[in-house]
Amino acid sequence: MSKKKPRTAITPTRADNFPEWYQQVIRAADMAENSPVRGCMIIKPYGFALWENMQRIFDGMIKDAGVRNAYFPLLIPLEFITREAEHVEGFAKECAVVTHHRLEQGDNGLEPAGKLEQPYVIRPTSETIIGDAMARWIQSYRDLPMKLNQWCNVMRWEMRTRMFLRTSEFLWQEGHNAFETAEEAQADSRKMLEAYRVFAEDYLALPVITGEKTADERFPGAVATYTIEAMMQDGKALQAGTSHDLGQNFAKSIGIKFQGRDGDERLAYTTSWGISTRLIGGMIMAHGDDDGMIMPPRVAPEQVVIIPMVKDDNEAVVMDFARKAADALKAKGLRVLLDEREMRTPDKMWDAIKKGVPVRMEIGGREAEAGQVTSVRRDLGRASKTTQPLEEFVGSVEAMLDTMHDDMLAAAKSKRDAAIKDVETLEEVEAFFKDDNIGFVRIDVSVLDLPDYGRVLKDYSLTPRCIPFADGGQKVLIAKAY
Amino acid sequence: MSKKKPRTAITPTRADNFPEWYQQVIRAADMAENSPVRGCMIIKPYGFALWENMQRIFDGMIKDAGVRNAYFPLLIPLEFITREAEHVEGFAKECAVVTHHRLEQGDNGLEPAGKLEQPYVIRPTSETIIGDAMARWIQSYRDLPMKLNQWCNVMRWEMRTRMFLRTSEFLWQEGHNAFETAEEAQADSRKMLEAYRVFAEDYLALPVITGEKTADERFPGAVATYTIEAMMQDGKALQAGTSHDLGQNFAKSIGIKFQGRDGDERLAYTTSWGISTRLIGGMIMAHGDDDGMIMPPRVAPEQVVIIPMVKDDNEAVVMDFARKAADALKAKGLRVLLDEREMRTPDKMWDAIKKGVPVRMEIGGREAEAGQVTSVRRDLGRASKTTQPLEEFVGSVEAMLDTMHDDMLAAAKSKRDAAIKDVETLEEVEAFFKDDNIGFVRIDVSVLDLPDYGRVLKDYSLTPRCIPFADGGQKVLIAKAY
Repeated sequence: MSKKKPRTAITPTRADNFPEWYQQVIRAADMAENSPVRGCMIIKPYGFALWENMQRIFDGMIKDAGVRNAYFPLLIPLEFITREAEHVEGFAKECAVVTHHRLEQGDNGLEPAGKLEQPYVIRPTSETIIGDAMARWIQSYRDLPMKLNQWCNVMRWEMRTRMFLRTSEFLWQEGHNAFETAEEAQADSRKMLEAYRVFAEDYLALPVITGEKTADERFPGAVATYTIEAMMQDGKALQAGTSHDLGQNFAKSIGIKFQGRDGDERLAYTTSWGISTRLIGGMIMAHGDDDGMIMPPRVAPEQVVIIPMVKDDNEAVVMDFARKAADALKAKGLRVLLDEREMRTPDKMWDAIKKGVPVRMEIGGREAEAGQVTSVRRDLGRASKTTQPLEEFVGSVEAMLDTMHDDMLAAAKSKRDAAIKDVETLEEVEAFFKDDNIGFVRIDVSVLDLPDYGRVLKDYSLTPRCIPFADGGQKVLIAKAY
Repeated sequence: MSKKKPRTAITPTRADNFPEWYQQVIRAADMAENSPVRGCMIIKPYGFALWENMQRIFDGMIKDAGVRNAYFPLLIPLEFITREAEHVEGFAKECAVVTHHRLEQGDNGLEPAGKLEQPYVIRPTSETIIGDAMARWIQSYRDLPMKLNQWCNVMRWEMRTRMFLRTSEFLWQEGHNAFETAEEAQADSRKMLEAYRVFAEDYLALPVITGEKTADERFPGAVATYTIEAMMQDGKALQAGTSHDLGQNFAKSIGIKFQGRDGDERLAYTTSWGISTRLIGGMIMAHGDDDGMIMPPRVAPEQVVIIPMVKDDNEAVVMDFARKAADALKAKGLRVLLDEREMRTPDKMWDAIKKGVPVRMEIGGREAEAGQVTSVRRDLGRASKTTQPLEEFVGSVEAMLDTMHDDMLAAAKSKRDAAIKDVETLEEVEAFFKDDNIGFVRIDVSVLDLPDYGRVLKDYSLTPRCIPFADGGQKVLIAKAY
């Protein structure tokens, strides 16, 4: 058999095998890998730098919204998590349980010892333990609203895991707010959802549809769950962030009470809202191509990579100019990598391509002598190759990154919108997925009450993604989902 | 009995009962509280904002040193932690053990179910799991040095806990570096210790003594442990950060091998280094006074608090001027709180004092009309009260904060140095602590070999804090410690 050089940097391609392409992009971009701990991943430096940028931006957004960060215990007493009946029902099947507090030498090596009187679960989410603190901290209406957030790890013992998208342990932020009235809580849960939409679209270039989950898909214990839903390039949906109006359900079971303006004791209304490292998976599947990742410029770990192309006789000239270019870009506040590794130039170029660095700059002897740089936009590839004076490039690179962001968002949006099909009947829903069409169907919400609705969902592994706000609550989107 | 108004904001005072004073400062400054989870604390927003500032600064320092952040699993397979014999010996007695992965309804309510074939421990530290990844990632000398860090939670099941100082769960950074040679690893562990010294002194105003731990006090599995030791106001020592030269011990047990420059396979040399939320306890006990916390200006959650003193007829004038002052300070990049709460002015003032806000600014009708502000430095109190034009204050506030930092560091250093006693004999050590003297003793290292050394340590609950670098390895500091 002859070995043919693959035309793409990633094998298989998206068209050949999307799930496997996804795994290969993560590996090729050096973002993460599976760990020896069941269902848990290691987030490697390049992937973690992306998460840090996302954290920094969203953290600023929530602080501007008056939210304060805090930190609550990792472990939740069993008794706490059972307080809210629907809540425990929702999480009991996937809790990591701590039952002992030391190890002792036994017959077969070290064994758990020091059995705890009451076991703890590792937080799958923290409504109960944060609610318990709020019950102590909130005395009067003057203490409201109370808006708290934590950036932390959580654990849900998933049976089938997939890097970033569904792992037993993941990183997230969980916001927990409390209010005097039902109206405020509802408005707040919508407001935080809007913050997610802005974050996804304006920073991750990830277009999302905002809407409400159907009753079956609500967070366990919520009165309403709002969601941002994104479409991946294989037409599947990804729930990219959720915001829950918990009404008085948790306040009642946990006892979050306050003295109202009239002196009467009342129950608070609470909300909770979260986004996670799952968003990274969403970005890969929305933006990546058959050569690897394409990083949205505003969160890219490196926004510009400079590849010096050195020959024996020009190393000093090229490297001096490359450093000058790097310094000029850093002075503008850009994240720049000057790739000085001992490695062949084509390998460096392909590494930058696979990692999805937004702008690749090549500097050879000719460029260095002419004071020019050659740049290529990752999303447009070699068609966008431009050679220009360094000063001109430095002066225009921010606009270039903004344009790239806008182009990525627009491309993802038009791809998505073209793959949403409006249908009238459940038969059309069935036909759409039977024929392996790619995308979502949009249909009148009355479909939820049809006798065959559940069967069609089951037969084609579909879920109702949301009732989009844009359609005035009259339509529901149905799709396969991650 | 007549009730006397206490002279200090904190009861008891430091002199009356230092440990209880410490707890009361944490409560009065609203920094943290005990949680319903055994041995775990809740870090409240004001305390967490301090940690965020510390993280941001130290994270910048380690990135400048070429360290890259990543994230490794919370759970460590039992088999991993047993690989390094001394290491497991050191941590086995205090491990939280995960044995089940779901909850099921039993006779007495929900019970652990889904027993794991192999239990996991919640990381007490991550040498073994990060080392396992390094063993995969490091192939050749070209992959070295490898410098990784994670900011995360860890768990050690402590029997006696104290907020910030010793809790079952705490937050920290753990750095893990790998090198080609023993010399590089040793130099690196010293370099990271020096980074801790700079961070403690230049940002937390916490003077520290750098040195090496005696063999008995080493990290389990290390060939050398370096430490920064601080003195609290009650004369006890606080280990404020440690950096370990692990030699080839972990590389050998985990298999971190690489192909050397000569083509031969070699074992890497590794280091690990960590600081934690414990530093917050150290700052409280080194800087606080009988009126509460005194925040080091460079990490203070709020550097300036503005307290508007409004009367019925001047609210608009005062508030307009207060906002103008706040904006002018924020424009300089300072962290400013304009205290607009509905609360009596003296209560606001005492709140700012107890929280240790470095500079308190008071703006009343007279000030607003004259365009002036009255400011008080927290560490100097009312003696430092100054009234001056707003512009003048804004122009000088950064220098004022720098001076306050320098003064706090100098005050803590002179207090500490006065409480270190040089002695010649073990009898003098015994006499020092028998007489309840406050502080450390410094004595020739040959004391470590005396037959009565162990007994004296035990009788007076002492430990050797370190062999200070400053004394050329010839002396050892002995003290009571947190």
